[in-house]
Amino acid sequence: MGTTQLEAAPEPKYWHLKTVLTDALDSEFAVGEILPNERDLAARFGVARATLRQALEQLELEGRLQRRRGVGTTVAPPRMGVAVASNDRDWPGGSADAWQAVDSTVDVPPSAVAAALETAPDTEVNVLRRTRVSHGQPVAAELLYVPVGPAPDLTAIDAASGAARARAVVRELQRLGLDGEDRAVELGSARADDAKELDRLPGAPVLVVTTRYFSRGTTAAVSVATYRADTCRLTFGDTAGVEIHHAPQTRAS
Amino acid sequence: MGTTQLEAAPEPKYWHLKTVLTDALDSEFAVGEILPNERDLAARFGVARATLRQALEQLELEGRLQRRRGVGTTVAPPRMGVAVASNDRDWPGGSADAWQAVDSTVDVPPSAVAAALETAPDTEVNVLRRTRVSHGQPVAAELLYVPVGPAPDLTAIDAASGAARARAVVRELQRLGLDGEDRAVELGSARADDAKELDRLPGAPVLVVTTRYFSRGTTAAVSVATYRADTCRLTFGDTAGVEIHHAPQTRAS
Repeated sequence: MGTTQLEAAPEPKYWHLKTVLTDALDSEFAVGEILPNERDLAARFGVARATLRQALEQLELEGRLQRRRGVGTTVAPPRMGVAVASNDRDWPGGSADAWQAVDSTVDVPPSAVAAALETAPDTEVNVLRRTRVSHGQPVAAELLYVPVGPAPDLTAIDAASGAARARAVVRELQRLGLDGEDRAVELGSARADDAKELDRLPGAPVLVVTTRYFSRGTTAAVSVATYRADTCRLTFGDTAGVEIHHAPQTRAS
Repeated sequence: MGTTQLEAAPEPKYWHLKTVLTDALDSEFAVGEILPNERDLAARFGVARATLRQALEQLELEGRLQRRRGVGTTVAPPRMGVAVASNDRDWPGGSADAWQAVDSTVDVPPSAVAAALETAPDTEVNVLRRTRVSHGQPVAAELLYVPVGPAPDLTAIDAASGAARARAVVRELQRLGLDGEDRAVELGSARADDAKELDRLPGAPVLVVTTRYFSRGTTAAVSVATYRADTCRLTFGDTAGVEIHHAPQTRAS
């Protein structure tokens, strides 16, 4: 009973070290505590600096550690569950979300976005920039692309740009009936402007959520939202309660 | 017109190089082609090796490049859209999915899984191991945890372990009415055993999808599925068609 053949794959040295470090994090360190420096840690665990660094990188990927310039490596709090989609269809900026309008411009979207919107290349669309804050921390930066077309009717909006216009465009979107939406999640790296809003370095791993909103038989809007991958666990469904915030552990035997 | 203040953040040198490299990938290289070595690339673009390496890492995170031991750096094909959830509720192993049963054991789950299953610590559960193949490539490795309880009724299953038992357990699960499910997506690193099945090195970035399946007022199963982050774009919703497979680009001005 309880034995398994699943663990037969050989594990590299840093992997074992990672397991040992995980136990140490659980038992000896508090959230927010600064770890000893790499030299001391390597000495304590009897490993080479390179091995230690690989293990620390893994733990950072898994959200157990945070590395901040000028601060050092600290023990991360559990990842926040951030609701991306409930089972109810919802326009961007619906009641349950905490997006804040930052800016609004009119611009030519990237070609992939133009394809998703089914607009001709070089056609300008409304580009809204929004940020999302959860538990007092920035968790996502979004570009929301809304074609200049018959629906939504944006001709009555006074503001030519800026946050006021962004809010007005979202209000007009919400007047449309929403036929459906689809969504994709993939790994990306933070652009410099997103990184700044998310308090990360450019190039940090992020989760990119691309959503298409359908209304009246066309794509009414496309959202490209960049979530911090270190602090966020994206949740989908009726409840936001999946509490498995660490990567799967090796099963106890 | 069409100018924007959003790009005011200063971009580090490797970021500019990344943009230049992206253009070169689009115009000069075919999918699968091996890039010149780092020394030659650094010389061509007039940058330090460290800067080049940072840019290559970004492009790997974004799924544009693949680095394989013994092969070198190749131009990646566009990421595959892999359907994780439709808007219809679906048991694991439903008609629309391509999971293959690998093994079945009885074991104590990790504590986070036990909490999600609401089983007491140290209680053994069925642990099914499955893999998912898409377009001929392994895309995900899953551990599916099913409590030993009144539902599903597994007492009539002959096979004590192995793939045959895993298939039988999934069949019994599918007989239960499904009340709902919820799901979380987060960044993780590949365990050695998952990495082997996914044809990756241990520690490679993965997207970990944790799903709870609810039936008859309890959690009937918990799935922890590890998707390759380099080749997969996880899709949610009615259509699987979001084709924005690269990270958002800087908008054309």
